[in-house]
Amino acid sequence: MDVVIVGSVALDDVRTPAGEVKNALGGSAVYASLAAGFFARTGVVGVVGDDFPEAYRQVLVSRGIRLDGLESAPGRTFHWSGTYEGDLSGARTLDTQLNVFARFTPKLPDAFRRAPYLFLANIDPDLQASVLDQVPRPRFTLLDTMNYWIQNKRGPLLSLLPRVDMLVVNDAEARQLSGESQLLQAAAWLKARGLRGVVIKKGEHGALVFWEDRLWSLPAVPLEEVRDPTGAGDTFAGGFIGALALLGRDAADPWPMAASLGTVLASFTVEAFSVQGLTRLDEGRIRERYTRLRDLTVMHEFPDWGWTGPTSDGGPSFRKKERT
Amino acid sequence: MDVVIVGSVALDDVRTPAGEVKNALGGSAVYASLAAGFFARTGVVGVVGDDFPEAYRQVLVSRGIRLDGLESAPGRTFHWSGTYEGDLSGARTLDTQLNVFARFTPKLPDAFRRAPYLFLANIDPDLQASVLDQVPRPRFTLLDTMNYWIQNKRGPLLSLLPRVDMLVVNDAEARQLSGESQLLQAAAWLKARGLRGVVIKKGEHGALVFWEDRLWSLPAVPLEEVRDPTGAGDTFAGGFIGALALLGRDAADPWPMAASLGTVLASFTVEAFSVQGLTRLDEGRIRERYTRLRDLTVMHEFPDWGWTGPTSDGGPSFRKKERT
Repeated sequence: MDVVIVGSVALDDVRTPAGEVKNALGGSAVYASLAAGFFARTGVVGVVGDDFPEAYRQVLVSRGIRLDGLESAPGRTFHWSGTYEGDLSGARTLDTQLNVFARFTPKLPDAFRRAPYLFLANIDPDLQASVLDQVPRPRFTLLDTMNYWIQNKRGPLLSLLPRVDMLVVNDAEARQLSGESQLLQAAAWLKARGLRGVVIKKGEHGALVFWEDRLWSLPAVPLEEVRDPTGAGDTFAGGFIGALALLGRDAADPWPMAASLGTVLASFTVEAFSVQGLTRLDEGRIRERYTRLRDLTVMHEFPDWGWTGPTSDGGPSFRKKERT
Repeated sequence: MDVVIVGSVALDDVRTPAGEVKNALGGSAVYASLAAGFFARTGVVGVVGDDFPEAYRQVLVSRGIRLDGLESAPGRTFHWSGTYEGDLSGARTLDTQLNVFARFTPKLPDAFRRAPYLFLANIDPDLQASVLDQVPRPRFTLLDTMNYWIQNKRGPLLSLLPRVDMLVVNDAEARQLSGESQLLQAAAWLKARGLRGVVIKKGEHGALVFWEDRLWSLPAVPLEEVRDPTGAGDTFAGGFIGALALLGRDAADPWPMAASLGTVLASFTVEAFSVQGLTRLDEGRIRERYTRLRDLTVMHEFPDWGWTGPTSDGGPSFRKKERT
């Protein structure tokens, strides 16, 4: 096992201007594991109820995802209902039924405890801490959270930061958690609490990736149509940690490539409802979209211009060098 | 003359969380010409009142900006008062006094009419049209506008689009003008009205540059502190058209470099009040920040990974190729 992902497995009702689905396969661990599974042997830790369809389990199994850590409990599966309006920039939650998730305590199978890459997807910080208690320090641990936990479990959440390597949050969450309005300062605040890196997701505006004293600013894939943003952040994080696992510890700068691969997979997620954007992918479409993303940002080196400084002759400060 | 810029020359009162200034040098043509002047011989067309300080005129002259087109009229100079709060993302206008601008009709000196690059900075679309009536079609014309004109002079504004090459607007203006919520579709709508290109500025999130069937997504320079955002968009546009003029028609893809140089200059503008961020610059600081911007986005080529497709062995779809 390369990557273990602990998070929610859900049945989602989602309505957007492009349509709606009911009892669709969803949850942070589902999106994240499907994404990570492109790049690494991936296992899920979570819980489902006795209403969870066998067909949904097969969606994961058929993509190579190990479900040894997916507990089945009496009762109903975690259920989320939400709607997106206008420019789809934010979900409005209509209903959350924790169901079997309310009594869930993550238990990692033995084979999972030695996985070098661990993603603590968005669940209660106390549950995330209980996972960390079960594993020897992995090579790399990524932590996600959300506004609800920042507001209601701030203490337990902050106490997790020195125990993980990197935090992945969106821009609003970074501001809320740090109290800083500028994202550079928010990242500095978070790193000062013991993190080695922070990813700040900005939706259609891409992502900032901070690792130690380095920074990258990566664009999103510009899309003609977004049908359902649900799971975009989870897909990003899963693709990110999966790609890190494949790139390995010998890669010089795995961060921008891993984040870009996460961005590419997230762009497929939002083009379709539920996980349909991820389950139809092939190598060509991933490679093509990665290359398109890369072409968006190609910047040349600074030109070989001469500098004259402030001028009194009405000419500019930079000038092309005379050909000699 | 390489670049002619038609726009406002203003005395600004600005208050931000970092401080305040009164009767400071401002206006779209001032920021844009100071920026363009780094790269190209630049002239300003505008109007000031008899209260406009000689020292402000000298700020422009000392940077090589030609003021032959800067009319002096009886009365007071255009005056804008605004304030920024919180994360400085938008200005709140407290007061606008058009003063001499109310009776202004741009008149281009003969030497200006043959300039190959023309920037119609943010003024009344009817005045922008009157400038176009005075010039033979320049090599390249860039048009700016704002929400006020989109709302109140939509017809005259739309009739300008087929007469210019490129429009530069922020994301909110692109959505307002096109009625499209997705920026790709907003740009497509605008280009369908006769433009060859569109720049959509996204503030701290960078800019999208559309030119014919090409697209670039460029980051902003991440800044520790923003003191006064006034003039950032004008600086960007001025630096952009100035750099286009210096790069010249033989440059293969001048667009991302020109936009990045505009972004770099705008990052200096917002770090200080009024034009102080621009008037203290030297080559080293511009080059250093351009290189920093470029390093933010470095993406490697897609790795030489093998693809196995969806797997049943619990392994990932992408794998490192075996060393043979």
